[in-house]
Amino acid sequence: MNPQQYSSSLLENAVQEFAKLPGIGRKTALRLVLHLLKETEEEVENFGNSIIELKKNIIYCKVCHNISDSEVCDICSNLSRDKSTVCVVETIKDVITIENTQQFRGLYHVLGGIISPMDGIGPNDLEIDSLIRRVENEGINEVILALSTTMEGDTTNFYLYRKLEPFHVKITTLARGVAIGDELEYADEITLGRSIQNRIEFSQTFNK
Amino acid sequence: MNPQQYSSSLLENAVQEFAKLPGIGRKTALRLVLHLLKETEEEVENFGNSIIELKKNIIYCKVCHNISDSEVCDICSNLSRDKSTVCVVETIKDVITIENTQQFRGLYHVLGGIISPMDGIGPNDLEIDSLIRRVENEGINEVILALSTTMEGDTTNFYLYRKLEPFHVKITTLARGVAIGDELEYADEITLGRSIQNRIEFSQTFNK
Repeated sequence: MNPQQYSSSLLENAVQEFAKLPGIGRKTALRLVLHLLKETEEEVENFGNSIIELKKNIIYCKVCHNISDSEVCDICSNLSRDKSTVCVVETIKDVITIENTQQFRGLYHVLGGIISPMDGIGPNDLEIDSLIRRVENEGINEVILALSTTMEGDTTNFYLYRKLEPFHVKITTLARGVAIGDELEYADEITLGRSIQNRIEFSQTFNK
Repeated sequence: MNPQQYSSSLLENAVQEFAKLPGIGRKTALRLVLHLLKETEEEVENFGNSIIELKKNIIYCKVCHNISDSEVCDICSNLSRDKSTVCVVETIKDVITIENTQQFRGLYHVLGGIISPMDGIGPNDLEIDSLIRRVENEGINEVILALSTTMEGDTTNFYLYRKLEPFHVKITTLARGVAIGDELEYADEITLGRSIQNRIEFSQTFNK
């Protein structure tokens, strides 16, 4: 097959670039590019420049390593948030997901990944030292480990637990259980088993 | 809901731009933007500039109005193509679709839409005059009408038919029928009815 299918190399180039995005094949890429081609030149420039500007000017918060517009992100500099609780997550996407629940008023710490020897990611590739420094110096009472429940997540959880233990900080992890709205019949056995082990006082559910 | 959900206005802006694309919601937009953020600055610039360059420098072929890198597109300037047959289509996308079949060796004429009074598109908004001039001056023997089988497509077909009749050119349209591989049971009645009316000699199918 000829790699250039279209009558314009500019079109071919744009489609190739869009088709590199995850979940976007050549057909969808063509549809998106032809859609943009119908917009005004200004709108297309706004689109193209939005991602270039983001990449060029993005700042990572020096405290929690979340994406930010300034040296310290809006969450870390927000005086109304609980500075004694830090939630440890893998990526900035997890921060957005947890923020959307509107149930957490503490701060975050973005590791930038999890320990995964198979992918060559060790503790030194992650923001673990800076987490330990925060726990040591910033009066943190509780660290919530909110990593994936995979082998790598468990490994990282355990590594962090060992590193943080000496500071006598409370270390918690997310409750795992049957999702709200799910029927027991469809829950997997491991989750359901964990839900039974970690059952809670019924009266606790009233506060929600 | 606060329109700015993220801790960075640059991220917010990029996500908003991506979410304007057809079929892309805010969640997918965020996924695409965070994917690009992991790429190198050069790759992100290539991506953003590919669409800006396309919009700025795109040329439409002065003969057939297909998208092109030069005044006359590769198809129109290809000496091995049959210049006596012109296939009339709505958009540049249709050109790509027909080219992919590798079954057509003639030229194209891109109307830029179809007559649609509901959307305020009349014959003068389309490349109809230039089609008539081509038929008049360029020794065209056959015009293939390859528009949608909608009310608007039929209207446009009929309008073109009336305009082209005086030039004694052969006017054809695409065969409609049961798709190859489809079972009769699942074909709609109008298509199946048309397939029976326009049945062809069995021996004709051998040449394909």
